[in-house]
Amino acid sequence: MGKKRILSGMRPTGRLHLGNYFGALQNWVRLQDEYECFFMVADWHALTSEWQDTSEIAELTRQIVIDWLAVGLDPQRSALFVQSQVKQHAELALLLGMFTPLPWLERCPTYKEQIKEISNRDLSNYGFLGYPVLQAADITVYDAEAVPIGEDQVPHLEMTREMVRRINHIYGEVLVEPRAILSPTPKLLGYDGRKMSKSYDNCIYLSDSADEVTDKVMQMVTDPQRVRREDPGNPDICSVFDYQKILSKDRLDWIDKGCRSASIGCVDDKKLLAERLNALLEPFRAKRRALEANPQEVDRVIEEGNARARAAAETTMRRVRKALNLPEN
Amino acid sequence: MGKKRILSGMRPTGRLHLGNYFGALQNWVRLQDEYECFFMVADWHALTSEWQDTSEIAELTRQIVIDWLAVGLDPQRSALFVQSQVKQHAELALLLGMFTPLPWLERCPTYKEQIKEISNRDLSNYGFLGYPVLQAADITVYDAEAVPIGEDQVPHLEMTREMVRRINHIYGEVLVEPRAILSPTPKLLGYDGRKMSKSYDNCIYLSDSADEVTDKVMQMVTDPQRVRREDPGNPDICSVFDYQKILSKDRLDWIDKGCRSASIGCVDDKKLLAERLNALLEPFRAKRRALEANPQEVDRVIEEGNARARAAAETTMRRVRKALNLPEN
Repeated sequence: MGKKRILSGMRPTGRLHLGNYFGALQNWVRLQDEYECFFMVADWHALTSEWQDTSEIAELTRQIVIDWLAVGLDPQRSALFVQSQVKQHAELALLLGMFTPLPWLERCPTYKEQIKEISNRDLSNYGFLGYPVLQAADITVYDAEAVPIGEDQVPHLEMTREMVRRINHIYGEVLVEPRAILSPTPKLLGYDGRKMSKSYDNCIYLSDSADEVTDKVMQMVTDPQRVRREDPGNPDICSVFDYQKILSKDRLDWIDKGCRSASIGCVDDKKLLAERLNALLEPFRAKRRALEANPQEVDRVIEEGNARARAAAETTMRRVRKALNLPEN
Repeated sequence: MGKKRILSGMRPTGRLHLGNYFGALQNWVRLQDEYECFFMVADWHALTSEWQDTSEIAELTRQIVIDWLAVGLDPQRSALFVQSQVKQHAELALLLGMFTPLPWLERCPTYKEQIKEISNRDLSNYGFLGYPVLQAADITVYDAEAVPIGEDQVPHLEMTREMVRRINHIYGEVLVEPRAILSPTPKLLGYDGRKMSKSYDNCIYLSDSADEVTDKVMQMVTDPQRVRREDPGNPDICSVFDYQKILSKDRLDWIDKGCRSASIGCVDDKKLLAERLNALLEPFRAKRRALEANPQEVDRVIEEGNARARAAAETTMRRVRKALNLPEN
């Protein structure tokens, strides 16, 4: 028996930022010890919402794989691959669609929310409604036993599980029902105090230079009541302090007391954070530089990842086609 | 410049009957002279409605190809292939879905009609709603210039054309916009006087024996007012006469006058029809027998058709992936 499998992915809609790192990547790196991992750049998923302009998809796909390698995903252990290069995802999504009641999709909380909230893009398309179907294919085509996800993705995974049960009920044990590995997702705001999001242009990117990081940290929003250096502050409502909880665990007491007593200023606080962030990111930057100097290495990783993913996916599809009595090549 | 292309297909949900022959196959055989033809067994389409029981799909797929060869489709000129064996259909369907507004699908007349009329199967599934998207992929993946269809399929083709225009508007001339070749579809009722349909078990099949054909013709419904041999009849309301219009053009005058004057009886009329039908079908049966004795030949035709279809589809997909900036193998 080999290791159990997990599948996870990211959409190539922007460079990766600290939210991605602490919310997912850090966990992925750890999960490699325990699982056989399939990590995909979900370029088809990006199309569901970005179908009107795909000009950056190929370059962002490459940048994401570079970020992955930089933070420590290991292509020896994990398949790092591109979704659209493994056609079996499309084949299985087509089949799963036949078994997916429309109301499951129409009532999906993330679907309803995005249709309501996003007004600058046209989302009333068949493909966008079918996002959870493609996601179910992504997971089940690898017989993934588990999927590391955030809380917001739970309804999607629940739908995958229901699809699997529906098909298995009719055709026997065809697909593996995956469970969630809930990743703790620390709440890190963007440096303007709003949710960290590419659309708000307020992200600290893994590929930012040390100066950019320092500059962004210096702009970060702290306790708005602390106007002057002498005013005591409240770390509980300070977004810098949220970062410190992750990056400066050993100095929390000093920061908390210093802020409340005004013995340290926000600038002192931010200088520490910028140092810690740059200490974290510097090894990633060094790895990035090495990879950018050797693009063939990145190509090789992607090609090998695609090949491993295809082989695993095809094994599942042979079983699915047989169960559904579809002719085989 | 090679010949222009057409694409058409049939779902493997039953053996082929006279309605299929006069409504489609007869035209397909002729179209081979003018076009490069792609004829597919639409097994994935069959799944959209038959997902709860697929046990007969593989065998019916084979039987359809045998019927096609028997009536004169020529594998030297036309690619006879199986949809699920050409994964590019699934890939393109996935992409087209991103560009397809939900209301186009929800308002499609055939969709609304089937959701309303069909009560013995659960059709409220994502895949069934997306039938026209998969159909658009089937057609455009071959750059088909035209599609031979019946009147009822016109709204589907119109949707394909709109999808093509939408994508071409954003990404340049990526896909070919197909036109309809409207096939005259003679109204042939089943031998019980209802619409000819597998579900009504009232079809005359291309694979029926001479005795079966004669037996079914003898049961056919004629003018219900003509109760006795001596009663004059009205050919205008006789379903046998609808068949004679196609099969006994040279004897129509004799039948019409004979019926109205009661100089011939319904049995005479039916005997003529049975003879003519069997004269039409006998060469098909002979070809069928030869093919059934040589199953490797059928396999070879399907494999060659699949290979030709895949090569043509992959050429289109390379262009599509490039236009949409998706990474290429």
